[in-house]
Amino acid sequence: MKDLKNYIETNRERFLNELFELLRIPSISSKEAHKEDMIKAAEWVKDKLAADGAENAEVLSTNGHPVVYADKMVDPSLPTVLVYGHYDVQPVEPLELWKSKPFEPEIRDGKIWARGADDDKGQMYMHFKAFEYLNSTNQLPCNIKFMIEGEEEIGSPSLGAFCEANKEKLKCDVILVSDTAMIAKDFPSITTGLRGLSYVEVKVKGPKRDLHSGLFGGAVANPINILCDMISSLTDEKNRITVKGFYDDVLEIPENERKEMAKAPFNLEEYKKELDIEEVYGEEGYTTLERVGIRPSLDVNGIWGGHTEKGAKTVLPSEAHAKISMRLVPNQDSKKITELFGKHFKAIAPKSVKVDVEFLHGGEGYVAPSDTVEFQAASKAFEETFGQKAIPVKSGGSIPIIALFEKALGVKSILMGFGLESDAIHSPNENYPLDNFFKGIETIPYFYKHYTEMKGK
Amino acid sequence: MKDLKNYIETNRERFLNELFELLRIPSISSKEAHKEDMIKAAEWVKDKLAADGAENAEVLSTNGHPVVYADKMVDPSLPTVLVYGHYDVQPVEPLELWKSKPFEPEIRDGKIWARGADDDKGQMYMHFKAFEYLNSTNQLPCNIKFMIEGEEEIGSPSLGAFCEANKEKLKCDVILVSDTAMIAKDFPSITTGLRGLSYVEVKVKGPKRDLHSGLFGGAVANPINILCDMISSLTDEKNRITVKGFYDDVLEIPENERKEMAKAPFNLEEYKKELDIEEVYGEEGYTTLERVGIRPSLDVNGIWGGHTEKGAKTVLPSEAHAKISMRLVPNQDSKKITELFGKHFKAIAPKSVKVDVEFLHGGEGYVAPSDTVEFQAASKAFEETFGQKAIPVKSGGSIPIIALFEKALGVKSILMGFGLESDAIHSPNENYPLDNFFKGIETIPYFYKHYTEMKGK
Repeated sequence: MKDLKNYIETNRERFLNELFELLRIPSISSKEAHKEDMIKAAEWVKDKLAADGAENAEVLSTNGHPVVYADKMVDPSLPTVLVYGHYDVQPVEPLELWKSKPFEPEIRDGKIWARGADDDKGQMYMHFKAFEYLNSTNQLPCNIKFMIEGEEEIGSPSLGAFCEANKEKLKCDVILVSDTAMIAKDFPSITTGLRGLSYVEVKVKGPKRDLHSGLFGGAVANPINILCDMISSLTDEKNRITVKGFYDDVLEIPENERKEMAKAPFNLEEYKKELDIEEVYGEEGYTTLERVGIRPSLDVNGIWGGHTEKGAKTVLPSEAHAKISMRLVPNQDSKKITELFGKHFKAIAPKSVKVDVEFLHGGEGYVAPSDTVEFQAASKAFEETFGQKAIPVKSGGSIPIIALFEKALGVKSILMGFGLESDAIHSPNENYPLDNFFKGIETIPYFYKHYTEMKGK
Repeated sequence: MKDLKNYIETNRERFLNELFELLRIPSISSKEAHKEDMIKAAEWVKDKLAADGAENAEVLSTNGHPVVYADKMVDPSLPTVLVYGHYDVQPVEPLELWKSKPFEPEIRDGKIWARGADDDKGQMYMHFKAFEYLNSTNQLPCNIKFMIEGEEEIGSPSLGAFCEANKEKLKCDVILVSDTAMIAKDFPSITTGLRGLSYVEVKVKGPKRDLHSGLFGGAVANPINILCDMISSLTDEKNRITVKGFYDDVLEIPENERKEMAKAPFNLEEYKKELDIEEVYGEEGYTTLERVGIRPSLDVNGIWGGHTEKGAKTVLPSEAHAKISMRLVPNQDSKKITELFGKHFKAIAPKSVKVDVEFLHGGEGYVAPSDTVEFQAASKAFEETFGQKAIPVKSGGSIPIIALFEKALGVKSILMGFGLESDAIHSPNENYPLDNFFKGIETIPYFYKHYTEMKGK
């Protein structure tokens, strides 16, 4: 790649200034109040792709937030790579824990600090700049298409229909995604497994009105206590999930694959230290990497009920609520699991309360082999810039659209993540090391090169 | 009582207009933002007592919200009754459940609707009007003192020191309180037992920052799940509290007293219907009245953690919180129980989290015999206006100052409550039936009369 390092070095400041423009747009997809910001972000993405040399750049409306498309077809006989990314971000609460404002990006300690710095504005923008370099220096080795959506953080509800409706436009040989993390600093990795997701909201309703906890306490079921009992019973003493039928479709990973996983660079003491916890936790019989990589989990993502402000209100509340999500492993069907959960949760409710279970969102897990052309090409690309081959890892996260792409477009995805687990995505103080950002821009062109070469053989 | 009914009838509208003035002051003692309203309410109470004919009316400052004092000494040889009440009210959230605004009182369906309509502005004001009648018609049978505080809803933190400092001023033969409920409509009752209270706030802290529930879920202890486990374990399958040593000081009530209690008018089907619940709940081996009257209880009054807004944020939160209160029976010491709870709660926490327990407020239970002069006088007073004697009942609520009065001033209290359980105190749509309000004004003068006569013998 001619002059690649020098190109990045020369344009370093401009690249950051451009990214900061995007980071300043509070494109929170889950909040109605940010609808205008979503459109603003989509327009910005479209304009930038056009400015970087892409053609046919357009903002395409969906039933939800729009999708941005652009492409650069150099030769129909060459392979076509579709770059996927998302311009939407997670909410930012609790705001008081941010050291700098989430939508006022700044650089401290060699990192970019902002909501979306990593997930996914920062990682997505590396692709724009890699493309700009290849295009402006006439070195594009293959055809490139961009599909940048605005609903990833809310489960991509419109993307399935969008893919179905635009099959021809989106036709490609592989989908390239940077929306995952490296297994450790300086250890490039390629995500070969993702967990599925079933996310529900539950309500436990007791008496029809809030009661005085003195006059009624001890005689009327308290929905918060009951909700705690019910949640507690969802896992057993081995931290296995008790929902009936939950493990029926879980594939046990063969011993040799577990041995392979155990070789990944992972330091439990550093992991605990970074999180400031004394002990890890999880399903008996599995390591930490296995617990997130190959085993399902159940987490309460939010809980609320009764008096949550300052002071001591003696209330026995009428209702209690929780958001509960389950991460699923490949072969577990998220719809089936959601149904099993709903049935189970209603079955375990005592007669003294009424229970509602509402499905919020979900998606399927994904597993990709590591003997494919795209895996080898990505691994070689990492080797060019990091000096070592990529490690295949199974991530605990979920990108439901990866399974969806395979179903709707019939193509596999390659997950070249440049984030770090310490980037605090979805948390206060999200950040993205400058090194990773620039290393990403440097690595991506090599993927196109090796992929085209290997594919051509 | 000369012309009593006629006096009430003639002044009916004025009484309500006056009470409405007080109900319009949002005197929420637990909220810093209402500090001015507290002073406004105290001044209003002082002015009204003076206007009704009391002497020495003054607003006395404390370390917290002020206490209003006033008296009318007719003859030092006659007995002195100290009327206690409180001008502060509970918070009003959730506001959206109120049918009319909490601080814009209105009359619907024969009831006054407002925060404080019953607890305790409405019940307290009956005493002002009973006093006005007796004083203006020169029929006061005894000396009367008023002590109206502004911190009852936050556990009366300043009242102990206030009583100690004003022993001489507050000297009396008995304390008269209307801040409880009748056992049922048309069934007057006198509260002879109150539960104590220990109210704490707990925090469970896991990882030092919010985590992505996909990348970490299943491998790092989730503070919400852990909090639910811990709360769930605080009661066993018989709904007994598992805190070590919790029942050590609980006195078992003798069988004959339980038989007496069982005679109280109570309809379980109506109780369930009024609350819209299919089943009651509680400690095995006890009836509903026993569960609130003579047995301790543990309720979560509030819980919060993680993502509690709309949508599906996939967060594994850093912290989870709950407010937990225990109602205690006489002979259980609230300080000791709070300590036992703190010790127990920390002991059951897994090593993967850190736990904080903060004491918010508490107080002792109370038990009063029913063979005293004040009980008999109150019962006779009820008989004059309701046509039947009062039933002694043990209430599930807590009025910690009743035990405090006995300790600080050496006098017993008599609890003549005119509220109903359906008055929704501490809840949205608090109300107070007009009948109960006016019946209270009519009954109170008879208490003074009978008490003075019986005491004189």
